[in-house]
Amino acid sequence: MLGVCYYPEHWPRERWAEDARRMRELGLTYVRIGEFAWSRLEPDPGCFTWAWLDEAIETLGQAGLKVVLGTPTATPPKWLIDQHPDILAVDQEGRVRGFGSRRHYSFSSRVYCEEARRIVTLLAQRYGQHPHVAGWQTDNEYGCHDTTRSYGPEDLRAFRLWLQARYGSIEALNRAWGNVFWSMEYRSFGEVDLPNQTVTEANPAHWLDFYRFSSEQVAAFNRMQVEILRAYSPERFIVHNFMGYTPDFDHFKLAQDLDIAGWDSYPLGFTDMDVLPCSEAEKVRYARTGHPDIAAFHHDLYRGVKPRWWVMEQQPGPVNWAHHNPAPAPGVVRMWTWEALAHGAEVVSYFRWRQFPQAQEQFHAGLNRPDFEPDVGFSEAARVAEELQSLSPLPPSGPAPVALVFDYEADWVYRIQPQGREFIYRDLVWVFYKALRALGLDVDFVPPGARLEPYRLVVVPSLPVVSEAALETFRHHQGVVVWGPRSGSKTEFLSIPPTLPPGRLQDLLPLRVTRVESTRPGLSEPVRWNGLEWPSGVWKEWVESDLPPQATFGDGKGALYRHQNHHYLAFWPGQDFLQSYLGALAKSLDLPLHPVPEGVRVRRRGDWVFAFNYSGQPQPAPAPTNARFLVGGPTLEAYNFCIWKAG
Amino acid sequence: MLGVCYYPEHWPRERWAEDARRMRELGLTYVRIGEFAWSRLEPDPGCFTWAWLDEAIETLGQAGLKVVLGTPTATPPKWLIDQHPDILAVDQEGRVRGFGSRRHYSFSSRVYCEEARRIVTLLAQRYGQHPHVAGWQTDNEYGCHDTTRSYGPEDLRAFRLWLQARYGSIEALNRAWGNVFWSMEYRSFGEVDLPNQTVTEANPAHWLDFYRFSSEQVAAFNRMQVEILRAYSPERFIVHNFMGYTPDFDHFKLAQDLDIAGWDSYPLGFTDMDVLPCSEAEKVRYARTGHPDIAAFHHDLYRGVKPRWWVMEQQPGPVNWAHHNPAPAPGVVRMWTWEALAHGAEVVSYFRWRQFPQAQEQFHAGLNRPDFEPDVGFSEAARVAEELQSLSPLPPSGPAPVALVFDYEADWVYRIQPQGREFIYRDLVWVFYKALRALGLDVDFVPPGARLEPYRLVVVPSLPVVSEAALETFRHHQGVVVWGPRSGSKTEFLSIPPTLPPGRLQDLLPLRVTRVESTRPGLSEPVRWNGLEWPSGVWKEWVESDLPPQATFGDGKGALYRHQNHHYLAFWPGQDFLQSYLGALAKSLDLPLHPVPEGVRVRRRGDWVFAFNYSGQPQPAPAPTNARFLVGGPTLEAYNFCIWKAG
Amino acid sequence: MLGVCYYPEHWPRERWAEDARRMRELGLTYVRIGEFAWSRLEPDPGCFTWAWLDEAIETLGQAGLKVVLGTPTATPPKWLIDQHPDILAVDQEGRVRGFGSRRHYSFSSRVYCEEARRIVTLLAQRYGQHPHVAGWQTDNEYGCHDTTRSYGPEDLRAFRLWLQARYGSIEALNRAWGNVFWSMEYRSFGEVDLPNQTVTEANPAHWLDFYRFSSEQVAAFNRMQVEILRAYSPERFIVHNFMGYTPDFDHFKLAQDLDIAGWDSYPLGFTDMDVLPCSEAEKVRYARTGHPDIAAFHHDLYRGVKPRWWVMEQQPGPVNWAHHNPAPAPGVVRMWTWEALAHGAEVVSYFRWRQFPQAQEQFHAGLNRPDFEPDVGFSEAARVAEELQSLSPLPPSGPAPVALVFDYEADWVYRIQPQGREFIYRDLVWVFYKALRALGLDVDFVPPGARLEPYRLVVVPSLPVVSEAALETFRHHQGVVVWGPRSGSKTEFLSIPPTLPPGRLQDLLPLRVTRVESTRPGLSEPVRWNGLEWPSGVWKEWVESDLPPQATFGDGKGALYRHQNHHYLAFWPGQDFLQSYLGALAKSLDLPLHPVPEGVRVRRRGDWVFAFNYSGQPQPAPAPTNARFLVGGPTLEAYNFCIWKAG
Ligand SMILES: [Zn+2]
Ligand SMILES: [Zn+2]
Ligand SMILES: [Zn+2]
Repeated sequence: MLGVCYYPEHWPRERWAEDARRMRELGLTYVRIGEFAWSRLEPDPGCFTWAWLDEAIETLGQAGLKVVLGTPTATPPKWLIDQHPDILAVDQEGRVRGFGSRRHYSFSSRVYCEEARRIVTLLAQRYGQHPHVAGWQTDNEYGCHDTTRSYGPEDLRAFRLWLQARYGSIEALNRAWGNVFWSMEYRSFGEVDLPNQTVTEANPAHWLDFYRFSSEQVAAFNRMQVEILRAYSPERFIVHNFMGYTPDFDHFKLAQDLDIAGWDSYPLGFTDMDVLPCSEAEKVRYARTGHPDIAAFHHDLYRGVKPRWWVMEQQPGPVNWAHHNPAPAPGVVRMWTWEALAHGAEVVSYFRWRQFPQAQEQFHAGLNRPDFEPDVGFSEAARVAEELQSLSPLPPSGPAPVALVFDYEADWVYRIQPQGREFIYRDLVWVFYKALRALGLDVDFVPPGARLEPYRLVVVPSLPVVSEAALETFRHHQGVVVWGPRSGSKTEFLSIPPTLPPGRLQDLLPLRVTRVESTRPGLSEPVRWNGLEWPSGVWKEWVESDLPPQATFGDGKGALYRHQNHHYLAFWPGQDFLQSYLGALAKSLDLPLHPVPEGVRVRRRGDWVFAFNYSGQPQPAPAPTNARFLVGGPTLEAYNFCIWKAG
Repeated sequence: MLGVCYYPEHWPRERWAEDARRMRELGLTYVRIGEFAWSRLEPDPGCFTWAWLDEAIETLGQAGLKVVLGTPTATPPKWLIDQHPDILAVDQEGRVRGFGSRRHYSFSSRVYCEEARRIVTLLAQRYGQHPHVAGWQTDNEYGCHDTTRSYGPEDLRAFRLWLQARYGSIEALNRAWGNVFWSMEYRSFGEVDLPNQTVTEANPAHWLDFYRFSSEQVAAFNRMQVEILRAYSPERFIVHNFMGYTPDFDHFKLAQDLDIAGWDSYPLGFTDMDVLPCSEAEKVRYARTGHPDIAAFHHDLYRGVKPRWWVMEQQPGPVNWAHHNPAPAPGVVRMWTWEALAHGAEVVSYFRWRQFPQAQEQFHAGLNRPDFEPDVGFSEAARVAEELQSLSPLPPSGPAPVALVFDYEADWVYRIQPQGREFIYRDLVWVFYKALRALGLDVDFVPPGARLEPYRLVVVPSLPVVSEAALETFRHHQGVVVWGPRSGSKTEFLSIPPTLPPGRLQDLLPLRVTRVESTRPGLSEPVRWNGLEWPSGVWKEWVESDLPPQATFGDGKGALYRHQNHHYLAFWPGQDFLQSYLGALAKSLDLPLHPVPEGVRVRRRGDWVFAFNYSGQPQPAPAPTNARFLVGGPTLEAYNFCIWKAG
Repeated sequence: MLGVCYYPEHWPRERWAEDARRMRELGLTYVRIGEFAWSRLEPDPGCFTWAWLDEAIETLGQAGLKVVLGTPTATPPKWLIDQHPDILAVDQEGRVRGFGSRRHYSFSSRVYCEEARRIVTLLAQRYGQHPHVAGWQTDNEYGCHDTTRSYGPEDLRAFRLWLQARYGSIEALNRAWGNVFWSMEYRSFGEVDLPNQTVTEANPAHWLDFYRFSSEQVAAFNRMQVEILRAYSPERFIVHNFMGYTPDFDHFKLAQDLDIAGWDSYPLGFTDMDVLPCSEAEKVRYARTGHPDIAAFHHDLYRGVKPRWWVMEQQPGPVNWAHHNPAPAPGVVRMWTWEALAHGAEVVSYFRWRQFPQAQEQFHAGLNRPDFEPDVGFSEAARVAEELQSLSPLPPSGPAPVALVFDYEADWVYRIQPQGREFIYRDLVWVFYKALRALGLDVDFVPPGARLEPYRLVVVPSLPVVSEAALETFRHHQGVVVWGPRSGSKTEFLSIPPTLPPGRLQDLLPLRVTRVESTRPGLSEPVRWNGLEWPSGVWKEWVESDLPPQATFGDGKGALYRHQNHHYLAFWPGQDFLQSYLGALAKSLDLPLHPVPEGVRVRRRGDWVFAFNYSGQPQPAPAPTNARFLVGGPTLEAYNFCIWKAG
């Protein structure tokens, strides 16, 4: 299904009915509204102007649209900030982050939690059972603009309480963090500071707990809203719109309180801005499409976050916020929409109905131009709507053949203590993902501890802290598991395990990592596997084990070990190696391989196989000769897709 | 005429008379003094020591020099700052910018305005009618060291008053800025903050008004001084010395209160530091001369700022403040001086008489060395003085054949909201200017709204906000006008015009820009014009129009349109294209083209044609075979110039 | 002799005895303890827990080890900071540098000086005459993490007092600094601010005095500790462990109060992080050994700081704090140890006994792994211990043939006022040093003013401020002296000398530098010497002199002058030129030249010649054919060394 984001408060009331009519004509089902409208709902403290929102919802509903109503907590009004300046967050350098844009609050502000509770309660009471309100969105893009962590007095206060709850006694905290080192011991929780602004780096265990605390604060803020909405608005779904790779809080955990995970898909800006890293050549080649794995990566991630998932904001044209903001190539908005559907999206909702000619996002295209004419994206959306009607229902999305274990905490651990400048969790996951996609394999992202039964192949790019619960799922798993470097290398409190890495994983992998090193770009060391030499770099481990190595470093030491169904990579792998190695494993496991030409990607949904062409030239569809095509045919046009039935 | 900057307070009184005598011997007319001397004039609050200045002026005057007396407001003394710390400016990060160098004040400090008024009044009363005082300089280099804008409480207070005066009601401001977006609405002017330190980017309309306000504060501060000087010092001229490209305030507007625009010419440092951008190869090639267009650009700009203009500070040797501070090649100080005269300078004044062996500028060369011997620049200045005597009077500078419409506000608009990282107004103007200069065309810089009658060719690199007044001058103009991209793309309040860009310019250009994009370096798209393909990048527009395109993009869409005498470029042009295109236009208009070899530039003054050789090799002068030379001859030596009479 | 750094407080008491036994077995003599243990010695204000330290010292001593006890002042405990937040330093941007790592104090905090005095006194009283305590280390790595200078109220207060003591009257200060410039004059010492946070650069004389003051504050803080230790702990030595190139305070002056100069040698991190600059190719080539001159440079520097010197911390494996942290190549820990001994180290002490699995340095290798097994460095140290036993005693280290005059103040002067971005004192010293080492010459670092008699060749890379005392040593020196550029270019108060540079040196060098320039990379000018052209860049001087130039610039002007035994380079020399020029001088002086292949270095100790192979391939030892080898032989293996007796 399709939807759109709409801001009735930006446009004259006289136009609302026509807008609604045209949305329906276009074939849209859902319309998201209200998420930045606090100053219009409560222009003065305690004075409410519900009438316009009543009318907007009614107008949209009358036209046949289902409303997703946003809570307006991402943008508290100025009068509230002036009354309570302690709502504002403080950055890592100690500067207050002021009013004048959005997300100007700390999740730990007690006043703000009360104010958010007040406005959400009023909205939920008023619209919770409204027949046209189908669901709710909480806030908007948690964590965007580096807003997960804040460093002010309210944050310090909440952090101390959180530590007290976690450790019980200050002695336990001192022991857990190793505070005997450098005389960092505390006598009470009231002595603990935030970890920023130290002379040199703070204790990484201190940082990790602060990251964990900050992540939980986001989840608690969201849960507070969810509980109100559940109470006053039964039988409505609750969604949040997450952003592209924003790992500062644990999305798996927050989403436990949601019904649907939404995410906001801007492939061009993400490619330009290295949301996932692209080479300069890729940035040029894919400037008008986005990197062919960048939207898919997030689709698969957010499907892991929640089985029901939406693209809540789909880029419909050029945007305003990247360093460079090119226009999508013709047809690409349609292709993006279909790719989301192929990956299992329940709804794709465009952002936004009409380009607003003022303020920060005036260069952000919509389906309609600011002169009220339809923009390029409009006609592409219309085509999708027609196609959807003729193709529905799509077969259900089953589990993929491969699971990728993704861990937010791993991102934090390596950001806090990379030990080598290029050891970035995001980049390691990205190289595993791209290798699997180049093999034409569908991928499910799962959190550590998730059920692994459906998967014959599980890859774990890296999992530094292995909980007992996570370990348990691996203990009984029969499928092949490929562990990346540094897995099991840390205890819960970020210390090196007493038996050395991989610590708890030594149950599965009888080996010990006795030494690690990070190296600079240019200092590559070949890994010998399968009779060939594969370049490696960034990270290398020395392993002691009775197992025979499956691959070796130049000095003959082991680089890759296997014990029963578990494989362990003692180095940072390159994409070429991974494609070969995982390809060989997949073949041996009889997984459905579909090697693709550059710029082409495939994805299955039930017995339908989709192929997408991100390149500017026609490409042969990677389909069997006798394939039955539902859309397109054996030649895949530039910026287009096709569907055939799996034989 | 020639002049020099002199600091009698730096040297023993016994030397003043000899210094003055040697200045006259050298052939100097003007001497600028006093602009940093506050602590010597008022060493304690209210205690004045005029005697030394009395004597200095008398000594210089007796020697036959005319004194330009500077108001000392660029350097308030420490005791004043300690009495009133709120004089100090605050930077964008919220840090107070302290005492200890110069320009340590905010233009919005009420106390400082009063103190400046006090000291200027006292000076004007004492020396206003002094026979040896020929004129006044206000302050020194407004805006230098990023001092136009300040972010402290005094600035906030003044900004709120300015907004109130501009908008009358807060509702009008909210509407103008589009504050309904992201709940940014205010209930009163007292709720408006400065636009810095927001969580993500502030409203660009908010920023633009803050830039406008800040620009006006500089002009108001200057006007306050001018009014005092006019009252107490009739018949003396008033000048300010502007810096190299410092667009933070509107020089055209400030200069309305002046008689003369001065500017400070440091071609080597400007080239090293990208005051106007130079490639690495240009920085090496022109390290000892400066880029051949960099001084000329400013001469032409400041001649546009005020018909009477001086080089108030001419680099006489190596300086101290650039990343690299090489020595000018032999002869270059003379060449710079003559180039300024060729462009119409009334006076060229060297900075400074003698290198001061202490403090921040101890590595800044003067005409004399710190050991009291003449430095290299001295002999070059002496040669200019002799040449001037034999060649005077120079013919008057008439209008150039080409006008370039330069707009300070355009710089602000694109700095605030570039929409593509490389869209920098300065760079766009620079590429237009260099193309015209390579064609050998003289250029007049004019502000929007200026009279255009004299010009057969007008180029407007970009003019985003077109005022009614500016539009009026174009409506009736008969000459050819070439509009660059994004012209007319914004309303006065920085929103997209209701009829889409070019908004008001649609009176002249019947077209609509329906989409724009910015692209990264490397993503170039050829523009086809005149049978050839020209690379373009940075910026591209989609145009709807019934006009036939004069040039097309690779996809066949129109890239350049012409309606009657108006041309519109829907892309960011490269220098090669501009040289071809403007060259063809100039030829069709019968303008005097003088294509020049690399490193050579020409400039006319009346019927004299000057040519300057910035290269290290002799070059043929671009003169007709039978040219009558006033200086030099058909071979232009390295770092030298020649003059011939136009046929 | 060998030693190790040990933290009994990190490990269970039950393990101490075994640790001590294994240390002795390994052949260690010294063990440094206690320098970060304040929170364990005084867990609550005034409550002391000496028992564990008593026991630790006893256990170590019983095993036959000599204890070096550190004062714990680098890490004051949290309760002390909370009682007295004014202990904390303030950074150049005005931000307080908080608790949570180490070195969190300002040397100018009065409270902290009292608290340090208190804890040091208690330690000295308790352990000063303990039979197992052989010596003391004061604090840890003064100046590390940019902690020499602080910008808070306590620093301002102390700076004003320091200025008052230095200048007596504010008029003298104003004159010395040239404060008449830009009205920077003060009326009292109470008006002087710190030089940070000015609008543009502060007076360089102001900065230089602040650098001098800050350097003296470190020395005073150390002296306070030394005086206590001398009083209560007679006949024990006192050492401090300096860091790699940390020139913010004058090590020569501070070390006057010490018996031994220690330094902490981390060749891999220093190479990765440009502690001395290395090219990208060198960083890759020497990633696992460190640059072959980087440890030697510091050995020679610290031998100059104090004739008795130790490597207090020797890198034993990968570390944690560089951008990249590779493992040393096999054998390199042994090679480093022997190189230190070859340069005259009295003790080499490994950091540290065992890798601590928690907190900031958990990735920092020790001789033992966190699982209590020996790590790679253990066996290399063991081998050194055996070799040492069989080779002892080593012949004494005599004076080197060449002295390099090293001046901390020179580093400050050029950092404060480089006048060209690439003019970095460290880099200039480094290029002189590398040239001498490539010639196989041993080098002694000496401060200005040191006795020069032993040296036939003295190089002075640059000495901007020449004191009367330093001048005196040169006046009577008979050996050849090579002066680098900018020597003598400044007075004590950082002004240009009245007779121009080289100022006071004009007694020795009858010449005047009339102009200087700095140039960008790429703008090289050849210097002609000895019939060849040598590239030069960065810096060039114009010299007036009756002396005939020994080398000339491209324009024929003099580049190198000689007067009697003094040579003056009027340009920034490249390494190739210096090797040729200094090589020719050394040959003429009959110094023992030993040109070495790339990656090999030599060093003499008495009549023993050591050669070290930093390359990965065997190299011929640069020994005479009939050399008698004490260790190794004519083929020098990779990462290995040999010793032969000089013929
Ligand atoms: Zn209804
Ligand atoms: Zn007179
Ligand atoms: Zn004992």
